Amino acid sequence: MRTTSIIAKKRDGEELTANEIRFVISRYVAGEIPDYQMAALLMAIYLRGMTERETAELTMAMARSGEELDLSSIPGRKVDKHSTGGVGDKTTLVVLPLVAAAGVPVAKMSGRGLGHTGGTIDKLEAIPGFRTALGQEEFLACLRRSGLALSGQTGNLAPADKKLYALRDVTATTASLPLIASSIMAKKIAAGADAIVLDVKFGSGAFMPTQAAAEELARTMVAIGTAVGRTTRALVTAMEQPLGLAVGNALEVKEAIATLRGEGPDDLTELSLALGAEMLVLADKAQTAGAGKELLRGLLRSGAALEKFRQFVLAQGGDARVVENPNLLPQAKQVLAVPAPASGHIISLRADQVGRAAMALGAGRERKEDDIDPAVGVVLNKKVGDAVRMAETLAWVHANDARRGREAVAALTADYAIGPEPGDLSPLITGVIG
Amino acid sequence: MRTTSIIAKKRDGEELTANEIRFVISRYVAGEIPDYQMAALLMAIYLRGMTERETAELTMAMARSGEELDLSSIPGRKVDKHSTGGVGDKTTLVVLPLVAAAGVPVAKMSGRGLGHTGGTIDKLEAIPGFRTALGQEEFLACLRRSGLALSGQTGNLAPADKKLYALRDVTATTASLPLIASSIMAKKIAAGADAIVLDVKFGSGAFMPTQAAAEELARTMVAIGTAVGRTTRALVTAMEQPLGLAVGNALEVKEAIATLRGEGPDDLTELSLALGAEMLVLADKAQTAGAGKELLRGLLRSGAALEKFRQFVLAQGGDARVVENPNLLPQAKQVLAVPAPASGHIISLRADQVGRAAMALGAGRERKEDDIDPAVGVVLNKKVGDAVRMAETLAWVHANDARRGREAVAALTADYAIGPEPGDLSPLITGVIG
Repeated sequence: MRTTSIIAKKRDGEELTANEIRFVISRYVAGEIPDYQMAALLMAIYLRGMTERETAELTMAMARSGEELDLSSIPGRKVDKHSTGGVGDKTTLVVLPLVAAAGVPVAKMSGRGLGHTGGTIDKLEAIPGFRTALGQEEFLACLRRSGLALSGQTGNLAPADKKLYALRDVTATTASLPLIASSIMAKKIAAGADAIVLDVKFGSGAFMPTQAAAEELARTMVAIGTAVGRTTRALVTAMEQPLGLAVGNALEVKEAIATLRGEGPDDLTELSLALGAEMLVLADKAQTAGAGKELLRGLLRSGAALEKFRQFVLAQGGDARVVENPNLLPQAKQVLAVPAPASGHIISLRADQVGRAAMALGAGRERKEDDIDPAVGVVLNKKVGDAVRMAETLAWVHANDARRGREAVAALTADYAIGPEPGDLSPLITGVIG
Repeated sequence: MRTTSIIAKKRDGEELTANEIRFVISRYVAGEIPDYQMAALLMAIYLRGMTERETAELTMAMARSGEELDLSSIPGRKVDKHSTGGVGDKTTLVVLPLVAAAGVPVAKMSGRGLGHTGGTIDKLEAIPGFRTALGQEEFLACLRRSGLALSGQTGNLAPADKKLYALRDVTATTASLPLIASSIMAKKIAAGADAIVLDVKFGSGAFMPTQAAAEELARTMVAIGTAVGRTTRALVTAMEQPLGLAVGNALEVKEAIATLRGEGPDDLTELSLALGAEMLVLADKAQTAGAGKELLRGLLRSGAALEKFRQFVLAQGGDARVVENPNLLPQAKQVLAVPAPASGHIISLRADQVGRAAMALGAGRERKEDDIDPAVGVVLNKKVGDAVRMAETLAWVHANDARRGREAVAALTADYAIGPEPGDLSPLITGVIG
């Protein structure tokens, strides 16, 4: 098999065979196919696309390119959850203890944040002592003990994806549907999931700009899951404005704890229940999503979900007292109000702009090697549709640096669009696929 | 300027600016843009194409990427000739002395052969003592002395083309019209030509399979020449069967000498006169191609062209006695006849198959580092349209190895298609563009 013939085939819009895809991926990981040949193939894939069959084969080839996590020693169907990323998206912190409290084992690999969206690992590390770098054995031990474990990637999972992702970034081949979909699914499959619930977001704060694009990505990933025997369901959800009110690592942990107490913002609670309910259905713990939601609401009310979160923090070395006293989380030195420059209604508040304001405060990274400050961020007081009076507080900026704090106040003042009529907003959950 | 933005622009089918093209080429030659980014850009160019303006800018950026030969010290308009390559194509050996005898200075850089087509350098090196590795000074001295010089590439001409050509070869981006056209034209421009006559071949023995494809390539190159101020004219010519009768280095030199004597095959004579006449027109030595041909025919008859060839061989260190006695050229040990297996007419004789038979005898290279044998090759006795009787000789195989000789006889027997009616053949010259 010759690499140039495979490149030429895709260049001419033909469908690659399973053998050709496996050949390319295994040789690339082994360093036998150079980056320049893979770059040409990636551009051909970008411009010519891939069929569902090809995309599924690519996913499996990447999932099998390194170690695969074996969760077979854990009884029950293991269901993973993945979000394509948004601003203020702390649903994982709420959904995982909820679902684990319902008896579904949850073993999750998470990533760090990059750009204006935050990563679950960064959020949990805001809890003093919390350890996310678990070895594979420790990860499984945590999972057995509390039915819930979360780790940064353990072992050499899907190395093909890691290598391809870095190459796509520098060759303008990132925004390709089959490449995005296979990258996400390969990691989930290598991490051992039997079933996968996806939260595919669209809007200003998401990777996919439009609802239609998010639905296409969702359909592509559900098709991959179906093709490779991992039941997959996707919610398509709006990320026009931030989810919940808090944006910033410790601030988001605090909001997640409030939500597990039944006192969270409506949108975060609604999305967490919807995602959790689908996980229960795929794990055969609920017949319907509606029944799943009822079950989960009961676990919020009874305090079982909050207790599961406490066990989880404790098992991974964190200070579990934060559950009762969130003030033990890192606190910023200054809290500055953002005053409304006019009266009216909030017409729009772009999630990406709020994310960038939080990043500029130190809550996120521009480059992989940047440090982050767990304490800083933004807490919204007004969201789209709310009425506001001039000088009323739109949001609070939590800052550790006076200049950065002032700049964030100015940026957020400009980010809120205020007009005479409430803005039009998509529903939070616009569709379920799969 | 960011390389990924430039890749993305071409990926999305937009036109690159002159600055973007120059940036990419100069940084790539300097090693500041890695092969993998250039590979992605090449595939985007392959699939999205380039406008005439972009192609001209790319050509000039490559032409200026290294040294440029300065022929301004040589009086008169310098006209270069380039063939896209074929089997048995020894026109350069005929045309150059013809045109030089008419008083047009000819300074030509030539290449070695690869695959089933031969290179002019390889052919000339069949003459004992002939030197083709001239330094730039020596090249200009030969040119001043005899009005004619031919060398393998001297100096660091168009290094961007060299680097890109190698990358295209391993990334399945060779057969792209703007990339082919700019590669050829960049080398001609860097080699100092004021005007360029192109022989763009189509058919089984050529790079372009069809007449339409050859015409498109010819139009693209003429447009480049026009855009950058170098008058360019292209003949579109058939390469269905070999040109002339001889295929193999010494055998082709012998045929070129016969042609300069006025005793060559009709097709080789016709094409040489047509190409030479266009060169005279572009050099202002003839008003029309017809007048140019008349002038050149006179130079054949008078022996002036043959004498110019003799001077040329002498000036570059070759044994000029071969002009009078071609038997001083390397001779193969065996000459084997290929007998016709049936009576009838020759329907077809694919040039590429004859080229491969000659290559298998040792006349050509499969890889750049292969040695070649100047003596071996094929001399055709029958070409398409000719009548043949069973057992009559179709061709002679000149071999230095008995086994290879027998294999060539068998291959050529199979290559000739013989039927009741003469085959249909394109005219040799199907068009003039520019």
